[in-house]
Amino acid sequence: MAGNSFGTIFKLTTFGESHGIALGGIIDGCPAGIELDFDFIQEELNRRKPGQSRITTQRKENDEVEFLSGIFEGKTTGTPIGFIIKNTNEKSKDYNHIKDSFRPSHADFTYEAKYGHRDYRGGGRSSARETACRVVGGAIAKQILIQKGISVQAYVSQVGPLKLKSHYSDLNLKVTYSNSVRCPDEKMADEMFEYIDQIRKDGDTIGGTTTCVIKGCPIGLGNPVFDRLEADLAKAMLSINASKGFEIGSGFSGTLLKGSEHNDEFYVENNIVKTKTNNSGGIQGGISNGEDIYFNVAFKPVATIMKTQTSIDKNYNEVTIDGKGRHDPCVLPRAVAIVESMAALVILDHLLLNQSSKI
Amino acid sequence: MAGNSFGTIFKLTTFGESHGIALGGIIDGCPAGIELDFDFIQEELNRRKPGQSRITTQRKENDEVEFLSGIFEGKTTGTPIGFIIKNTNEKSKDYNHIKDSFRPSHADFTYEAKYGHRDYRGGGRSSARETACRVVGGAIAKQILIQKGISVQAYVSQVGPLKLKSHYSDLNLKVTYSNSVRCPDEKMADEMFEYIDQIRKDGDTIGGTTTCVIKGCPIGLGNPVFDRLEADLAKAMLSINASKGFEIGSGFSGTLLKGSEHNDEFYVENNIVKTKTNNSGGIQGGISNGEDIYFNVAFKPVATIMKTQTSIDKNYNEVTIDGKGRHDPCVLPRAVAIVESMAALVILDHLLLNQSSKI
Amino acid sequence: MAGNSFGTIFKLTTFGESHGIALGGIIDGCPAGIELDFDFIQEELNRRKPGQSRITTQRKENDEVEFLSGIFEGKTTGTPIGFIIKNTNEKSKDYNHIKDSFRPSHADFTYEAKYGHRDYRGGGRSSARETACRVVGGAIAKQILIQKGISVQAYVSQVGPLKLKSHYSDLNLKVTYSNSVRCPDEKMADEMFEYIDQIRKDGDTIGGTTTCVIKGCPIGLGNPVFDRLEADLAKAMLSINASKGFEIGSGFSGTLLKGSEHNDEFYVENNIVKTKTNNSGGIQGGISNGEDIYFNVAFKPVATIMKTQTSIDKNYNEVTIDGKGRHDPCVLPRAVAIVESMAALVILDHLLLNQSSKI
Amino acid sequence: MAGNSFGTIFKLTTFGESHGIALGGIIDGCPAGIELDFDFIQEELNRRKPGQSRITTQRKENDEVEFLSGIFEGKTTGTPIGFIIKNTNEKSKDYNHIKDSFRPSHADFTYEAKYGHRDYRGGGRSSARETACRVVGGAIAKQILIQKGISVQAYVSQVGPLKLKSHYSDLNLKVTYSNSVRCPDEKMADEMFEYIDQIRKDGDTIGGTTTCVIKGCPIGLGNPVFDRLEADLAKAMLSINASKGFEIGSGFSGTLLKGSEHNDEFYVENNIVKTKTNNSGGIQGGISNGEDIYFNVAFKPVATIMKTQTSIDKNYNEVTIDGKGRHDPCVLPRAVAIVESMAALVILDHLLLNQSSKI
Repeated sequence: MAGNSFGTIFKLTTFGESHGIALGGIIDGCPAGIELDFDFIQEELNRRKPGQSRITTQRKENDEVEFLSGIFEGKTTGTPIGFIIKNTNEKSKDYNHIKDSFRPSHADFTYEAKYGHRDYRGGGRSSARETACRVVGGAIAKQILIQKGISVQAYVSQVGPLKLKSHYSDLNLKVTYSNSVRCPDEKMADEMFEYIDQIRKDGDTIGGTTTCVIKGCPIGLGNPVFDRLEADLAKAMLSINASKGFEIGSGFSGTLLKGSEHNDEFYVENNIVKTKTNNSGGIQGGISNGEDIYFNVAFKPVATIMKTQTSIDKNYNEVTIDGKGRHDPCVLPRAVAIVESMAALVILDHLLLNQSSKI
Repeated sequence: MAGNSFGTIFKLTTFGESHGIALGGIIDGCPAGIELDFDFIQEELNRRKPGQSRITTQRKENDEVEFLSGIFEGKTTGTPIGFIIKNTNEKSKDYNHIKDSFRPSHADFTYEAKYGHRDYRGGGRSSARETACRVVGGAIAKQILIQKGISVQAYVSQVGPLKLKSHYSDLNLKVTYSNSVRCPDEKMADEMFEYIDQIRKDGDTIGGTTTCVIKGCPIGLGNPVFDRLEADLAKAMLSINASKGFEIGSGFSGTLLKGSEHNDEFYVENNIVKTKTNNSGGIQGGISNGEDIYFNVAFKPVATIMKTQTSIDKNYNEVTIDGKGRHDPCVLPRAVAIVESMAALVILDHLLLNQSSKI
Repeated sequence: MAGNSFGTIFKLTTFGESHGIALGGIIDGCPAGIELDFDFIQEELNRRKPGQSRITTQRKENDEVEFLSGIFEGKTTGTPIGFIIKNTNEKSKDYNHIKDSFRPSHADFTYEAKYGHRDYRGGGRSSARETACRVVGGAIAKQILIQKGISVQAYVSQVGPLKLKSHYSDLNLKVTYSNSVRCPDEKMADEMFEYIDQIRKDGDTIGGTTTCVIKGCPIGLGNPVFDRLEADLAKAMLSINASKGFEIGSGFSGTLLKGSEHNDEFYVENNIVKTKTNNSGGIQGGISNGEDIYFNVAFKPVATIMKTQTSIDKNYNEVTIDGKGRHDPCVLPRAVAIVESMAALVILDHLLLNQSSKI
Repeated sequence: MAGNSFGTIFKLTTFGESHGIALGGIIDGCPAGIELDFDFIQEELNRRKPGQSRITTQRKENDEVEFLSGIFEGKTTGTPIGFIIKNTNEKSKDYNHIKDSFRPSHADFTYEAKYGHRDYRGGGRSSARETACRVVGGAIAKQILIQKGISVQAYVSQVGPLKLKSHYSDLNLKVTYSNSVRCPDEKMADEMFEYIDQIRKDGDTIGGTTTCVIKGCPIGLGNPVFDRLEADLAKAMLSINASKGFEIGSGFSGTLLKGSEHNDEFYVENNIVKTKTNNSGGIQGGISNGEDIYFNVAFKPVATIMKTQTSIDKNYNEVTIDGKGRHDPCVLPRAVAIVESMAALVILDHLLLNQSSKI
């Protein structure tokens, strides 16, 4: 109810503030007997980790995850997996200036109004640092999905005005992680890097879009009516810090099409049902149809800028807020790992849930 | 788990197929002592009802709701409100031709694959007829919200290539229901009507966008991390038939902005905290900040077209499917009531939930 | 949250007041393709139905269930099963005398205090009439369980001072329904009948105990820690009107035993793991071990008696309440079907849930 | 779903195995601004802690809880409270003998059957060591309840054949913790101590009963039908290791009474509605009525005995199991703190939930 759990069968519950002792979480409902690749989990965390290039925040965090339970002799036991990630590089005094003030477009004001008492240091619970725990959950989910032939891959498809023209199927998604922007088109990646770097030098920030593709998803995941697969993906994506939009398949551009253009006709190939086009984005009637699932997620520019802004303090006095702390000029490169993690959590949860729909 | 319930405190559970005996639902968690305006509920249903003009499906349904419990002497008792809407105008034989075939971009195939046994008549559970029950729930939610000074208003902001240029704040939303398109700009409404009518004559369908505005939402609704208010709104909207996208506040266009342009600076007016701009869309850190909440929902063109399409049957033979049955050339005019209903359900649920977050 | 849903995967949500238009419910999560025996469902309802002999209430209700959705051509479709049971024999004017007064040991006072506005007729939602919907859900659950070789059988093991001495395994449970008391020992059944009939003539009521036995439950149902199988059974049983206690396996009498007496030693027979004794009641560590699951449920005497009692009214004045209306002198005979239904709901839900615990 | 979460609004999720690195948990939904008394939490943990006298297990655990989040400047922030308790005194080699064997009446067999891979050391997740996390949650819940004038007090009312005759209202519950048995009758406490000590010397174990009394509970907590307050208490109690039964108010002995004896007549004193007797145990129609809530919980004798027993191993061979490890001869003295914790979690959760039932 209080919003720190995600999923029904494979359920991740997280805790932790940006500048507290540790972040952490509990994964409940992980099937037993899964042999975990801990290096893979750490690599996934590293992909989200700050301080990877000059276009991400310079906060240095090892983001080393310690597993405390639920794993025995390297394999999951079916009991809850508890884990923590200690905070090591917090610089709380950077935040004294916003102890009593509300930064524009941050959660300072709404947290204060809702809770009355907040850990202001580094944004506390509202900091994107929290997403590290999502990546731990996602990295375990991904390992199970891979065994089932399901892959989840995201990439940066737009940064400010720079937008990839190619459809995901015309891109080599494997090169996504060869550059620090996480764009599968090398040339565009270079342009985006330069653009973000200039934004950074200007003390400003910029938004963008992530595209995510899920391949190998079996037919039948998702439910009619309220818990459609795309509805759960939408919730997952809009739960990520700074995200502002979600579109699946043809999305907003599909609103311009006629039914005769948009409909995906069925055919059979090698005894497998396929569709000639995939405007549906792999989901029909809320249920996966075996085609690729793909969607876009919009991210706004990071709210913390290295410029002076006006705002108010707790006593409703007007104040001036200067940019301080270590922040990302563009959240997109680091968002890729988070989008993938949330998508993996949704798909695995529906995979397990679907097993309980038959007898 | 099986996807037919929505909400946590104020929870709507629905049932019913397009051509079954009746649709219906249970509203659990409605506060006691609410004096219900039954005419209002029926009006809301009428706004979603088919057969209202020549640009909506000609199926004639009275959509009369009967309440069976939870109400005593005109007021809610706090116990579950059961209701049914009988189906009266079904023409099931219209659907014999798709008994064994899968219509393109419909749920026929995915339901068959997931369940093995389906009520094909009129699309069964996958028909948008199901949304009538959402409107019943939404109409009750709205009545409670209105008492709290919260209004939920949606309108058609785009139909195919025809797009309203004005911001919602420059429109007179009260005129929305004066035309059958449900567009608050009369001139644009006429254009949209003609456009949809031409699409209908062509036997085709068209997509579009709905904009929804929530005014008067108190500060503090929503939760950090996974159950952000916008995440729950996104899920609600993507759970509606034919919806393909959701964006809140600046949405996808916000990805083009810099932080210095996007940030909403705080100020105080009459002792109320406000923001100079509202790119956040009324939600910051997942929690409402007192500003208007507004968002767009994208709808694809209706899948049923009056044209011949190729597809496959249950035995994987190629078949030809002709358009039959009574369907909407454009779902947008009827979607307005559904979008409002789902938004009202989310806001009321969070309002009640928020009451349990304090002691 | 508001307490009208039961189960997680196979979920029953109910509505309806004693003297309203109809009772009903929605079963969500029922697997598709189950061929339903509607006569069986009605027989189960008949077993709970009032007016079966002179030792049950003389209210005559047909308790005919109408299914409105989720079933097509006699088989479940995986979509929600909506059903209603119309009230036909309500005599609401019997209850005018308690409109403003609180009957002792009834829910009149607590409902008034919690909700402020209540349907007092026949006890409204607090009437045991609500349990008819549980029996509908249970009857469907039972049919699925039977296909899996799982049987759920309850019987009256005690009425006031009359207590069956025999262990369930020494009784022929099949004769339970040959008498109106629902006691598998014919001689004891006669004694109980005479005893209850005398209680009835005295205008009084009496409590008792139901024993329930589940055979054929597979190994592995239930979860560690909070959702132990016995914990969910306990909740199910204590949710039944007038129930006051639950004990599984050795129960309260097991508190007198030493570990060396109580422990169930394992052995293997025909390659199946068994225990020499079954003090555990078929559940160890919260998880079924393949042995019979058995438990007792205590029921208090029905609160409505045909005697004059003192109480208070809404204005806190002392009042005298005379016994009126039609009520059971002993709830036990009719409770048997309800106990079985709730047990079936728990077991089926865990059966389905267990399917989602593996990959 | 996987059973490691408890509660809806105030929700405790736990993890940890007996001999793993650490136990821990997350409390989600704790209201903000609660000033926590950390000494009180530690005292509560000490009451459950092993090694307190010669009649409890000699395993020495400090059971020191470390809070990692959700608390700032000594007060809760409304964000999730993460905590861990490190295991320090595990002697895993004590358990090598049962690595491949199933101890009678333990969870070894059912865990192996359900999960296929288990942490056998000290019983892993099935060990009662897990209950330390419940006490952390309960200790925080209690602090909030105390502010609301609600107290939760349990005591040992029976050990094997030794049973307290007095009703709880005739006992001085404050002396409960003056003895290591946790019995409020000093003389009986001495007898119980001697009895348990003899059982211990015999290498055996013994069961017993805990009584719990909740005073000051406001009217209106609990829900009709499935989530009755007593149903949630029953589930809470049956979720505790080794518990076998639950009875509220008159409980099983109430089955012997007639309605005219059992009914609790209302009267008014100082403008407060009271009942002359309290056979209902403070709950009517599933909802608290303002009287004391009281119930009994039955605990079986601990399964681990210092005697030789026969059993089977993984390969279904008959084996002999000798008693080893450090265990309690009687779980009752330590169960008192756990029963109180679970009761506090239920009451606080319903208190918060009840706030969302009104508008």
